[in-house]
Amino acid sequence: MSPSNQSILQPELKLQEDLAAFKKNVDNMFLITMGIFVFCLQGGFAFYESACVRPKNVTNVLFRNYVDSSISVIFYFLTGYALTFGGGENGFCGTRYFALVGLPEDKMAHCFFQYTFAATATSIVKGIVHERCTTTAFLCYTCLISGFTYPVSSYWALSENGWLKVLGFQDFAGSGSIHAYAGAASLAAAYMTGPRHDRFEKDGKMNNIPFHSVPQAFLGSFFFVLGMLAFNTGSNGSITNDGDGIVIAKVAVNTVVCVLASSMTAIVFQRFVFERSCWNFEVGLNGSFIGMITICAGCNQYQNWTALIVGFLSYFVYLIAQKIIIFAKIDDPVGGLGVQMGGGFFGLVFAALFKDDGVFLQPSMSSANTLLINTLGGITIMIWGSGTMTLLYFVLRYFNLHRINLSEEQNG
Amino acid sequence: MSPSNQSILQPELKLQEDLAAFKKNVDNMFLITMGIFVFCLQGGFAFYESACVRPKNVTNVLFRNYVDSSISVIFYFLTGYALTFGGGENGFCGTRYFALVGLPEDKMAHCFFQYTFAATATSIVKGIVHERCTTTAFLCYTCLISGFTYPVSSYWALSENGWLKVLGFQDFAGSGSIHAYAGAASLAAAYMTGPRHDRFEKDGKMNNIPFHSVPQAFLGSFFFVLGMLAFNTGSNGSITNDGDGIVIAKVAVNTVVCVLASSMTAIVFQRFVFERSCWNFEVGLNGSFIGMITICAGCNQYQNWTALIVGFLSYFVYLIAQKIIIFAKIDDPVGGLGVQMGGGFFGLVFAALFKDDGVFLQPSMSSANTLLINTLGGITIMIWGSGTMTLLYFVLRYFNLHRINLSEEQNG
Amino acid sequence: MSPSNQSILQPELKLQEDLAAFKKNVDNMFLITMGIFVFCLQGGFAFYESACVRPKNVTNVLFRNYVDSSISVIFYFLTGYALTFGGGENGFCGTRYFALVGLPEDKMAHCFFQYTFAATATSIVKGIVHERCTTTAFLCYTCLISGFTYPVSSYWALSENGWLKVLGFQDFAGSGSIHAYAGAASLAAAYMTGPRHDRFEKDGKMNNIPFHSVPQAFLGSFFFVLGMLAFNTGSNGSITNDGDGIVIAKVAVNTVVCVLASSMTAIVFQRFVFERSCWNFEVGLNGSFIGMITICAGCNQYQNWTALIVGFLSYFVYLIAQKIIIFAKIDDPVGGLGVQMGGGFFGLVFAALFKDDGVFLQPSMSSANTLLINTLGGITIMIWGSGTMTLLYFVLRYFNLHRINLSEEQNG
Repeated sequence: MSPSNQSILQPELKLQEDLAAFKKNVDNMFLITMGIFVFCLQGGFAFYESACVRPKNVTNVLFRNYVDSSISVIFYFLTGYALTFGGGENGFCGTRYFALVGLPEDKMAHCFFQYTFAATATSIVKGIVHERCTTTAFLCYTCLISGFTYPVSSYWALSENGWLKVLGFQDFAGSGSIHAYAGAASLAAAYMTGPRHDRFEKDGKMNNIPFHSVPQAFLGSFFFVLGMLAFNTGSNGSITNDGDGIVIAKVAVNTVVCVLASSMTAIVFQRFVFERSCWNFEVGLNGSFIGMITICAGCNQYQNWTALIVGFLSYFVYLIAQKIIIFAKIDDPVGGLGVQMGGGFFGLVFAALFKDDGVFLQPSMSSANTLLINTLGGITIMIWGSGTMTLLYFVLRYFNLHRINLSEEQNG
Repeated sequence: MSPSNQSILQPELKLQEDLAAFKKNVDNMFLITMGIFVFCLQGGFAFYESACVRPKNVTNVLFRNYVDSSISVIFYFLTGYALTFGGGENGFCGTRYFALVGLPEDKMAHCFFQYTFAATATSIVKGIVHERCTTTAFLCYTCLISGFTYPVSSYWALSENGWLKVLGFQDFAGSGSIHAYAGAASLAAAYMTGPRHDRFEKDGKMNNIPFHSVPQAFLGSFFFVLGMLAFNTGSNGSITNDGDGIVIAKVAVNTVVCVLASSMTAIVFQRFVFERSCWNFEVGLNGSFIGMITICAGCNQYQNWTALIVGFLSYFVYLIAQKIIIFAKIDDPVGGLGVQMGGGFFGLVFAALFKDDGVFLQPSMSSANTLLINTLGGITIMIWGSGTMTLLYFVLRYFNLHRINLSEEQNG
Repeated sequence: MSPSNQSILQPELKLQEDLAAFKKNVDNMFLITMGIFVFCLQGGFAFYESACVRPKNVTNVLFRNYVDSSISVIFYFLTGYALTFGGGENGFCGTRYFALVGLPEDKMAHCFFQYTFAATATSIVKGIVHERCTTTAFLCYTCLISGFTYPVSSYWALSENGWLKVLGFQDFAGSGSIHAYAGAASLAAAYMTGPRHDRFEKDGKMNNIPFHSVPQAFLGSFFFVLGMLAFNTGSNGSITNDGDGIVIAKVAVNTVVCVLASSMTAIVFQRFVFERSCWNFEVGLNGSFIGMITICAGCNQYQNWTALIVGFLSYFVYLIAQKIIIFAKIDDPVGGLGVQMGGGFFGLVFAALFKDDGVFLQPSMSSANTLLINTLGGITIMIWGSGTMTLLYFVLRYFNLHRINLSEEQNG
């Protein structure tokens, strides 16, 4: 190339660099903005859970919500982020960036965004064991989840070298790695802790404990919607690659479509098919929650009408999960078990079934393979989640630290 | 051009394309972010309305808020978006994109954003008929508004080929197409339903029913402010065209200026001119609401000081509207009728009067014409809104489905 | 240059201009989005303060929150923005843009964003004198702060020509210019107003008045977290310069790290070292508040681990400040004095100590100089804040307008 041409090209190269730097900035802005929105989920948990428990325990519930978003900061930044995104080729967990040491500066926004996810995963468990779990047990599992077990299974599902990812596991916004995981961990915790003393009558009938404050429950649910819209949208991770804008729009629309379909199905079936009594708000809210979770795994890949189908089916997942939980006499004050574990696991299954090149629309070896991997992956993650939690509770039970005594439980 | 020059130009073309794709992404991010904020309005309606009604009806109010944001998803995506933005040259309504079929992928973000507007329009009516409207009637008008009547009048005002738009109708953020429309529809619904049994004494005196929870009302109002800032800002629709950044900044500043002017006028006049009793919070909140609505139509075109004038005048619009409503014995539990209809309509008028090239600052044939079109357009939209609603209620009344019976009303 | 080359360069120049315009748009989007989030702080003040006072005063507290965000709009736009950012070389205050006249269009977004800061500064004082301050006094100091005293000291700290800035004062997100300032002004107001009649027993013992609604306090705190994340992030002022993305990510991570460290320290020390009774939620919340404030001044310059240290130390600042305030029998219903003044001032000190090139990590004349300037600057700003407020209260006390009478105080 002649010198004169070179001088012409130089400003062009500068433009290219300039544009690349600009894009990085915008990506960071995207992650930070969405991260702040995702933080709304913490408000969601706080208000929804505190509306579900009895008034005597409200302060305690809010306090724990507050503490666990704090603790998960320490542990996620100390070890969690490193275990999930610290590279490594062992397939089991990451190996760099412990205590964020050596973290490249341009990954900091990603780190903040992922923290809001870890805080979500950590928050879920506590809801299920409210009103009977000791503070010691609560602190132990909060540290364990945010610092070790959640990050490890996230590595499997999200990291380039994660063994599930390598096999073809598809989980866009954490149906499996967050919700199925946290649901399974909650199940183990709830089972090992046992039900509240007044939850089941001697004849096995369950005492229903309604919201003590409907506006508070509504506020929680409202924060959930804000948070989940950002949760799914932000899961795209960037906004400057070709087509990113289209993906996040699709995700947002699919999310509202699925949530609506799921909650409307819940309300209509409850009113006209099952109980045939008056409209039930709580059922509707739970319907919308499971829709939010089921859609996660494939929200970037559904057509709008398949999102509608996913929403419709979600309610039945919830219904069956709920029946099993009650039958097994597991006590779940906030109704989160069926929503998280059922929704998370079937989110993975539905993603493999209903996405554009899924089993349903394009049956093939490849799509069947994805279905298999997603199913097995979901099961593995749930075994990991419940297994590690059970181990922890064996220790806690040995020292009799897992449960408050009866008088405390009665007095709140 | 010589071949060597061509090869120089190629990277340049690539850069151009790259930049264009990047801009699309950022536009989508803008619409999704603002859309999530606009969704805060749903929280606003829920908490403000539930604070206005009596405690026995709180759950019902929250439930309806929840249901109507769900239902409007279905109907807006099925037919609403198509009727408003589906092109078509008939001047009456759009003709493509039913059930979002054939929607170009890069319009999905716009579709999500517009859904949050449709949910707003749908939410407004329900507030006015709280505490006496049947669930059947509620479901009917929710479907009608989100799926047909609101989209059609929006087409008139917003679509390239809409007959009002063609005539020169100017309504930046939906003063007319959303607020005047929904206000008029609410008026029809409230008139056809009749007042609550204990709203007016036999001698015609109105029983004032104060907030049962001031913090809840405040929370609602707070969400309104967050939502309306995004509502007006996002109405610009893009952020990557020349001058977009300046427009959204102007919109944000004008919105807060107008809201403040309107609410301060309300508080001061109520305290020192009209009732001369103690400060009245409810009046102040209503003052800020009407400011939020009046500013919509021209918030991109006012100077800051004209926004101040608009805010000042807004309160008097509210005052007069409120007097008429009480005189006509129309029962409005949330005080939304005067705010929406008065604010919406006079928003259109003020926009034509006070914008930079409006009647007030630059009297001319052209500005007079805009004033005429905005006035007539507003009236037409209101006739459309109230007319279609009246038709619906004739049917509902025929089957006696429009109103709960007295004992239900007394028990909540 | 040959003509042919020129024609090649032209599209390149166009691209450059295009990119520059695009960047301005994105910067504006950043400021507006963050500004809306910062507005969440207003909700934070409203709900936290109203939870701290007694139920009889809740409506009054919410009303004042509402009024002061309105009034600060007028006064900040009339004179405040001009005094801070209106250029001028006198070193004391700005001289242009009064009533926003002559404001370049591309500064409008900055103006909106800065308004949300001014509204924050204005909101802080009122909390400290709740339950006894007259409406007249409230209106007077609101106007004074938003229109004159806060803008002037902000000019010193932020404007190119501000005398503190010229000397090397470093205050990224307003530890000094907002929090130390407002804390000092609050101290003066609280001292001049005197304590509530039932706050201190005759023997000097303080009556503790707990939250009347824990969920409301939690809601307030939650809005504080959302708002402060945006407050610190947005303080960067732009997102399109090289490295902006990295700065905002660092700021977000440092903010959550510091808040957590501070609140965990508070909870643990209160539980195991000081009172040794049960866990105390209120202490934890105050711990997180002081963390949010201390981090402001240097959140763009800390390593993650220095942010942790800052958070840890913050709690002790709070502890000592609180002891002094109680010893001096100053009544502070919301516990904001120690948080704001202590946190604000020590935020400045810590920034000079712990930043990368600070006294702690790189002792040098230059870093010692920054420490000196930050300390003296903080003290000057606090003298300015408390001095102007004291002058105002001398006038108010002269006319006996500073405090409601005892019967009003008892009845609320």
